[in-house]
Order: sequence, then C-alpha cells, then structure tokens
Amino acid sequence: MRFIRFIDPAGATHYGLRQAEDRAELLAGDPYSGLTPTGESATIATLLAPVQPVNIFGIGLNYKAHAHETGADVPTSPVVFMKPNTALNHPGAPIVLPAACEHGPEVDFEAELGVIIGRAARDVSETDALDHVLGYCCANDVSARRWQKHGGGGQWVRGKSFDSFCPLGPELVTADEVPDPQALTVRSILNGTVMQEQGSVDMLFPVRRLIAELSRDLTLLPGTLLLTGTPEGVGFARNPPVFLAAGDEIVVEIDGIGRLVNPVIAAGSA
Amino acid sequence: MRFIRFIDPAGATHYGLRQAEDRAELLAGDPYSGLTPTGESATIATLLAPVQPVNIFGIGLNYKAHAHETGADVPTSPVVFMKPNTALNHPGAPIVLPAACEHGPEVDFEAELGVIIGRAARDVSETDALDHVLGYCCANDVSARRWQKHGGGGQWVRGKSFDSFCPLGPELVTADEVPDPQALTVRSILNGTVMQEQGSVDMLFPVRRLIAELSRDLTLLPGTLLLTGTPEGVGFARNPPVFLAAGDEIVVEIDGIGRLVNPVIAAGSA
Repeated sequence: MRFIRFIDPAGATHYGLRQAEDRAELLAGDPYSGLTPTGESATIATLLAPVQPVNIFGIGLNYKAHAHETGADVPTSPVVFMKPNTALNHPGAPIVLPAACEHGPEVDFEAELGVIIGRAARDVSETDALDHVLGYCCANDVSARRWQKHGGGGQWVRGKSFDSFCPLGPELVTADEVPDPQALTVRSILNGTVMQEQGSVDMLFPVRRLIAELSRDLTLLPGTLLLTGTPEGVGFARNPPVFLAAGDEIVVEIDGIGRLVNPVIAAGSA
Repeated sequence: MRFIRFIDPAGATHYGLRQAEDRAELLAGDPYSGLTPTGESATIATLLAPVQPVNIFGIGLNYKAHAHETGADVPTSPVVFMKPNTALNHPGAPIVLPAACEHGPEVDFEAELGVIIGRAARDVSETDALDHVLGYCCANDVSARRWQKHGGGGQWVRGKSFDSFCPLGPELVTADEVPDPQALTVRSILNGTVMQEQGSVDMLFPVRRLIAELSRDLTLLPGTLLLTGTPEGVGFARNPPVFLAAGDEIVVEIDGIGRLVNPVIAAGSA
C-alpha cells in the first residue's frame, strides 16, 4: 500500500490512497493497527507528511563517500542524533530559512530514505529488524551547517532542529512493497539539477543493522522515524559551496518510493 | 501548585495533589489548560513522572565547574542534545543498566533542574521566556559515558537515550511558586553521599536565556522538557571514577522542588 495523509476542505485529517492530484480514497483505521479502504473519497486540501513521528532519529555519515566529502572519519558504529518532532514538514510546504542563520547562507539539503517503525522494536536482531518496519518514504534532513558544527559545541542537534527542517513524504510505501531497502536510488535535485544520486546499497550500516543497533536497550515505538543518512553531494561540501536560498526548489526522489518537493522561503515570508 | 501524576489501583491515570505517601486528591483538567482540585481522592498505586514530555532537550556543560571537570571548553552558546521520550523514567522506578554497556561500568548520574514548557514558545525574548514555563521538577540526565563519547561518533544522543535514562519528578512545582529558578540548590546523593551540590545561580545560561536561545526559529510545544545542565561532581570526572552499579540508590534533590529517588538494577532483572 502507498498511503498519504491529508486535510480535507472541512479541516478533518485522513489517511488516504491517492486517486488524483487533489483527490484520495479514504482509509479507515491507523497505520499501526491497520488501514482499510472505505470506498469513499475526499478532496485533498492540504497534503501532510504521511505520519506524525513520535521520535526522530538521524544517522550521520552513513555513506562512505559522504563521510569522505565532509572530512570525517568513516564511523565504526552508527552516528546517532535526533530532530524534535516540531521540525516535521509536509510535501509542498516551504522550508523556511531561519532568521537565526544571520551570518550568511548555511542551510543545506540531505536526501534520505526515511524508515517508519510500525511495531515496537527493542533488542531486535538484524534478521528480525525489517519485520518492525511499517514502511519507507522520502525525507530531507535539512541542516544549518554553522549551527550544526559551531552553534552547539559540536553537537549537531541544534542545527538540525529548526521548524520546517524535516520534510517527509508524500507517500509512505508499506514494507511489503519494498522487498529490499538497500536496492533503492536516493537522489536530490536542486532547481532541476541533480545534486546527489546514490544507491542505498552503499549505506555503511544498512536499515536492518541500524534498527538492531538503535534498539539495543532502547524502545523504538510505532511512529518512530529513522533518517538513514545522506549520500555524497550535499551543498556545503561542494566547491564552491551551494546553500539553499529563497526561491529555490529542492526535491528528494527515491525510485519506487516517491518524489518530495519543497520550495525554500526566507524567514518571515511564510 | 505542586502536582503529581499517578496510576490508581484500577489502572486509571490521574493528576493529583499528594495528601499522603499513597493518597492524592484528584485534579481535573490537564496541566496546559489548567488543573482544578475535585475534592475526591484516590490511592496511588504507581507514581509517574509528572508529565509525559513531547520533546526532551538537554543542555550540556551549563555549569562552568562541570565544563572544567570534563576537560571541555566553556561553551559560548548552549550545547544542545536530545533524549527520546521513551527514555522517560518515573520516581522510585529503576534505572536499568543497559546490556549494551558490556565493556564495563560507564553509567553516570547528572542531577538537573527540569523545566517544563506550558505555553508554546517561539522566538521569545529573555524577558518573556519564563512566562512560557509551566513549572519545574527534579531530573536525572542519566548518561552512558562510553556510548556518549565513543559510541556515536562524538554525538551524545546514543549514550543518553537508553530506556529508563530520564527519571523525572516526583512533583511538578508550578512557576508561580518558583520566583527565581536561578536561586535553587541542585544536589545528587549516591547511597547517602552527596556527590553534586551547586546553586542554579552558577548556570552559564540561565533558564530564561536557554528558552530564548532554543526557541529561535524552533517551536517549544507545551510539554517540552528542558534539562538545564548538571553541576560539578559527576561520576566519570572523579578520581577514581564512580559509576552506577546494581543495588545503588541515586537521589536528585532540589530544595523547594522535590526529591527524586531511583534504585539502579542490572539489565534483565526488572
């Protein structure tokens, strides 16, 4: 199943199966206990991220070529950070350049495969890990580089936590339709130019390993979002660097999963 | 008001005003829209942390003497990390030493003043910041030091995120009863011995500044928990180091706010 979440013209929120650009069949239930088609449909007034995450974990430097381009050592265990769930952003909604990025351009894109946990996971093995996955979607781990590196004593959280910094969607593709999450191509496209394009086969720690490692003595609740790291080609590592600017359009595209498009706007112009 | 949250013998969860060790007057409503005494009371079967946080932000190195004891530079802006809300732990409930801490003792205590946001805060000034605070409570930012420093490529999140690593409570003292959050004494007591004891006046970034800084372009929702940093005297910085062991009792005490007691147990013994 490939489902979306949206608000109808009356203001009610639904899960749905998209039938047209602005129309979806309604699904009854919820993603964790089960969604069932109803035969009824509604107009999509506002598209939402397909789920509201309970916790968002990000993985740093999970593609060797990206670790190299940042100048970091290749990690020997997953580099884990978090984003607050207030950073969640929706398909088509603007990424807002923070007023706090007052020292010049620093906001960067990171195309990533998003993994949503469907069944609570704690101390699961790599073999069983994917049984706990609800599904997959496109994600953009938007990052303010100065804040990430220098604004928080070396801790990345602050630079990755601004409102609008976690676009997600549009569809969530359930795990049964994704036989191998390591056989996907992850791509970012800035104003029509491909900036990142790499197979998820190149992840240093594949999805099953990330879930096994993260779930050690730690409960991954249904609705946990896992951002699995970004391929080579982010803006700050380019020569000259490329940062997001008002008026840009940034796309995260994963073949077979979806295409997540977000415009970029200046602070205060929302 | 000083309120608690608890489960009654029938399994229902309530906010309440404590009347005795095992008895509380029930409060109607919720902490964010308002709690009202009902005149009815119930038996406390299980005490809970006074709120269920939506996001948990931690501040590192916020007392100069603690920054010095860790060997870190004194930060020039708040060092921000997060804990997942699954790390929440309750008064009297065990801190479980993770099986993942397999390389020897490394689990440490950090007595902290917890601040709970009551009214959404975004881009608030230092002057207005405390108007957004619901109240204060004792917190323990339990940290697995090897995982914090070496298990996540220098990112602290993984070492601070294990289940049971965020004891909170027992009471939440509403802001109207705390005229100055910088006039409190924060203390940890391990098996009867005072390990940390310092005035919150020594915070490098006081509560009002932390809220102002964190809320820049970032929405702090009602129910956000802010851990404001720990004083000098944590276990790993001692000579010889002191780490939590099964059978220990660790207390966080803040005069006028409360006394949070947690036993420590080994993995698998819960």
